[in-house]
Amino acid sequence: MTRYKAIISYDGYNFSGFQRQPHARTVQEELEKTLQRLNRGQEIVVHGAGRTDSGVHAYGQVIHFDLPGAREVEKLRFALDTQSPEDIDVVAIEQVTDDFHCRYAKHQKTYEFLVDIGRPKNPMLRHYATHFPYDLEIERIEKAISALVGSHDFTGFTASGTAVKDKVRTITEARVRLEPERNLLIFTFTGNGFLYKQVRNMVGTLLKIGNNRMPIEQVERILQEKDRQLAGPTAAPNGLYLKEIRYEE
Amino acid sequence: MTRYKAIISYDGYNFSGFQRQPHARTVQEELEKTLQRLNRGQEIVVHGAGRTDSGVHAYGQVIHFDLPGAREVEKLRFALDTQSPEDIDVVAIEQVTDDFHCRYAKHQKTYEFLVDIGRPKNPMLRHYATHFPYDLEIERIEKAISALVGSHDFTGFTASGTAVKDKVRTITEARVRLEPERNLLIFTFTGNGFLYKQVRNMVGTLLKIGNNRMPIEQVERILQEKDRQLAGPTAAPNGLYLKEIRYEE
Repeated sequence: MTRYKAIISYDGYNFSGFQRQPHARTVQEELEKTLQRLNRGQEIVVHGAGRTDSGVHAYGQVIHFDLPGAREVEKLRFALDTQSPEDIDVVAIEQVTDDFHCRYAKHQKTYEFLVDIGRPKNPMLRHYATHFPYDLEIERIEKAISALVGSHDFTGFTASGTAVKDKVRTITEARVRLEPERNLLIFTFTGNGFLYKQVRNMVGTLLKIGNNRMPIEQVERILQEKDRQLAGPTAAPNGLYLKEIRYEE
Repeated sequence: MTRYKAIISYDGYNFSGFQRQPHARTVQEELEKTLQRLNRGQEIVVHGAGRTDSGVHAYGQVIHFDLPGAREVEKLRFALDTQSPEDIDVVAIEQVTDDFHCRYAKHQKTYEFLVDIGRPKNPMLRHYATHFPYDLEIERIEKAISALVGSHDFTGFTASGTAVKDKVRTITEARVRLEPERNLLIFTFTGNGFLYKQVRNMVGTLLKIGNNRMPIEQVERILQEKDRQLAGPTAAPNGLYLKEIRYEE
């Protein structure tokens, strides 16, 4: 068997997330179905680096899978790209060694979160950005967001009842910028791993701070007290993008 | 009766165009249904400035309609915006005099056309930009596009068999720019009116010129010879946006 690593992008709107599950359309299942067709019916298992939730998009999701025999990678990319549904694209494929695992190999993930701050909303972006039509002081968000950078226990920003034990993660980049032409507020977070719903809970909290309904210091308090009740609501999935995954050499 | 002018935006993907027609979902019908609900079942007719085709989007379509009695315009805008389907937004409403007609009052229209030049395409933009994955020399398009500015008989750029007799229109702005971050090539056209499929035929021709499959001078030849056969294919509707309408004072 030969192992292949691929970078894929997808529109999450019509998917119940990445991971296969019964009675639901998922990215993993669509890719596995296509690979099976391309391999004379042989079952192929696809592994994903990030298990994006229902409605979450990706520009740089990384997957890996094993195929019998070696292929020309550009031919394989083209076949998988054109044979997959139109809401999945295959950006790149390369052959990797058998010990590469897209989820367990050390990597940094970058997520973006798009907020449509237009009034009214942009109908073209209703599945691709979360609408927030309320007052925002962006300087308050800029002040609050820097407290997220570093190694912290993010218990207060994850869904309560998460099974993972070690909730310490390191965020190396957390910033926000305005794109005035499209009325978008864009959050960027890079780190060595994110807990379940962590990005959406951080964004929900930061929007509440920007809207002056929480103090700027609330981010530090949530990190210290590790209490989900202190954080803001979970932002909707339609604004979230898995933007890029960078593996360590 | 009191006349109202409104600016609306819509995602054209799930509409069979603006204008009402049997057995098809149209923007006009959805707005009329909403206005009828807001007016105790009374039938209201909506007029549109531009009859956008199936799949074409709008950021600045202008409509007008008459309602019995005067309303507070912001309340009316809010009601029409929130009661309309989620792929239509009502940006602004104002009261106008009874002699205003959104289609017949003199105006300038601006259209934009978005081309996704990424390889592979951006799945998030598949309904919001036309994918063109072939080689493009943008300088060739820049040279060719300027010949469209001015008053010309645009017969060669409209669908053959168009009923309109006078096919002379004036284009005051025709330009193209690259937005590298989103891999978008954006065409902008402003004029006092556009013939049926004119913008999409101009874009189809310009892309063929950019792809080196037509000479730069082809635009002038099409204008002179008024022959649709000389022009390129009609670009797909998913990249076209009715961006703005400006009325003369």
